[in-house]
Amino acid sequence: MQKGTRTLAYSQPVYFNGEGSVVGQKEGEGPLGKLFDVVKDDPMAGKDTWEEAESELQVEAVQTALKKAGLNKKDIRFLFAGDLQAQSVASSFGLSQLEIPHFGVFGACSTMGETLILGSMTIAGGFADYTMAVTSSHFASAEKEFRFPLEYGNQRPLSASWTVTGSGACVLGRRKGTLGVTACTPGKIVDYGLKDSFNMGACMAPAAVDTLLAHFEDMGCGPKYYDRIFTGDLGVVGSQILEEKLAEKGYDIERIHQDCGVMMYDIDKQDVHAGGSGCGCAATVLCAYILPEMRAGTWERVLFVPTGALLSKVSFAEGRTIPAIAHAVRIERVKEK
Amino acid sequence: MQKGTRTLAYSQPVYFNGEGSVVGQKEGEGPLGKLFDVVKDDPMAGKDTWEEAESELQVEAVQTALKKAGLNKKDIRFLFAGDLQAQSVASSFGLSQLEIPHFGVFGACSTMGETLILGSMTIAGGFADYTMAVTSSHFASAEKEFRFPLEYGNQRPLSASWTVTGSGACVLGRRKGTLGVTACTPGKIVDYGLKDSFNMGACMAPAAVDTLLAHFEDMGCGPKYYDRIFTGDLGVVGSQILEEKLAEKGYDIERIHQDCGVMMYDIDKQDVHAGGSGCGCAATVLCAYILPEMRAGTWERVLFVPTGALLSKVSFAEGRTIPAIAHAVRIERVKEK
Repeated sequence: MQKGTRTLAYSQPVYFNGEGSVVGQKEGEGPLGKLFDVVKDDPMAGKDTWEEAESELQVEAVQTALKKAGLNKKDIRFLFAGDLQAQSVASSFGLSQLEIPHFGVFGACSTMGETLILGSMTIAGGFADYTMAVTSSHFASAEKEFRFPLEYGNQRPLSASWTVTGSGACVLGRRKGTLGVTACTPGKIVDYGLKDSFNMGACMAPAAVDTLLAHFEDMGCGPKYYDRIFTGDLGVVGSQILEEKLAEKGYDIERIHQDCGVMMYDIDKQDVHAGGSGCGCAATVLCAYILPEMRAGTWERVLFVPTGALLSKVSFAEGRTIPAIAHAVRIERVKEK
Repeated sequence: MQKGTRTLAYSQPVYFNGEGSVVGQKEGEGPLGKLFDVVKDDPMAGKDTWEEAESELQVEAVQTALKKAGLNKKDIRFLFAGDLQAQSVASSFGLSQLEIPHFGVFGACSTMGETLILGSMTIAGGFADYTMAVTSSHFASAEKEFRFPLEYGNQRPLSASWTVTGSGACVLGRRKGTLGVTACTPGKIVDYGLKDSFNMGACMAPAAVDTLLAHFEDMGCGPKYYDRIFTGDLGVVGSQILEEKLAEKGYDIERIHQDCGVMMYDIDKQDVHAGGSGCGCAATVLCAYILPEMRAGTWERVLFVPTGALLSKVSFAEGRTIPAIAHAVRIERVKEK
């Protein structure tokens, strides 16, 4: 433990033992489309409601992760899960069939960071051999929850993002592997007083700045330590704000920074405006692209920084601000000793 | 770590270093009224909306807990918080001013159990000297979120519970004290197919049964180990189901079982039907009554088992079931060695 800091540096890595990604058709047609484990052509995923469809994505992502890890659901001691729905119903309903002891979390689109931190801390602390970290989002359930029913055909400004239909799940474990979580910097809630839910990138960028500055300071490292820094879903607008604000503080991340929301779609051709968003955005890009590329040797050291906007339709209707949070997870190729 | 079980038994206790409870007027007029740290006569707590009022309860509970612990907010390495509102806005808004690294959780009315487990695990694993566990509910914000606006003056059946206006917060720490968390049994999501949101006790009782059976089996103990078992907010109806179901399995808890929801109000005189409910119910009874009585020597060993109904108004409107979860926390007076 580092006194006086918020970063946790583990004495032993917590390994990625298997991961699964499930996305919708639009994501399957994007630049990363061929990398996802499952692409669901049916937006209802064979279910009756958008919420049930989202639950089904989680279940399939978890089952894929278990299969790749060569494990059974009984091997997972604890599951950490959350989503964007009110009262996290996507997680509560789908995952109950797995009968794994359950910790529900809420971090909006930062959820994959939060589940990875809690899941890895549980293993690093000696409380489990394996844990599962999972999250999801669904375009239609999120529009219904936060904006307008799809039938209204509402228009969106260019700063708005497109909620990713997808779920990512990771098995974390003690069992040695190529990649491990070696340190985490949990986020603080940062509220800059912004109120525009059609410009979430701008609302979330200050939280990413706060967490990255804390991480660099706590670890005594700058961005140069990393081959890549991936934010979750800042989109085009938020990414620019992040890079500018960090440059003002003397940290140049532009060359190594990528945003999962920008990578998910062909922004010009797929009509997604500022890019992808939602818990499922960072989670599926992590599972389908970042981790496999690291295993292939493309990068040695990555910082994964999903960001979340902590609003509800009630808080929005009441004219309140949009506080945000960002969690940072250091992922490294583990060298044989 | 106990292989193959879901119960965590800590090698060293994680201590309760200070706690705070804040409630509304109705709770202040109940049988435990004089025990709470703060009774707010103004249901708006000086704010403009019910949601902001609920946030204010959390802030005051945290500040009271810090004060009793003799600590500053900077001493708390991580805060675990959640509430019943969609997207946990009561927690996200009020607590941001504390600038403590934040883990949002969602466990409905089981939230105090979840935050105590995660908060104590973090300390037992060596990741913090102090953590904070906090949750809240508010009658008016919960009615707005889940049922009907207060202005409708709707009627409630006798099996319905009354959401407690209140917040409880605990500082957990390494610093030795009289009381400690010595073991925890995280819950699984249990879904018996019940759908009546005006009878949450019946929906949640099976989850309490499941967690208690797992706890007794994992720890090799029966209810006789405990001086008291406190469930969160099963109310009159759910408590009876729990006691009957456990009796069928050979565990007689009737003599030592109490339910925080039943204890919170004078059920006959205060028009609360089945009793109190909400995240704030178990949390405030723990902080104002259970922990102080244990310190005074009334009980040596208590099992604290808050239960949560994992529904949303969307899942309810879609005619879905009400899955539930219960988390168990073993609290003991720590003997000097």
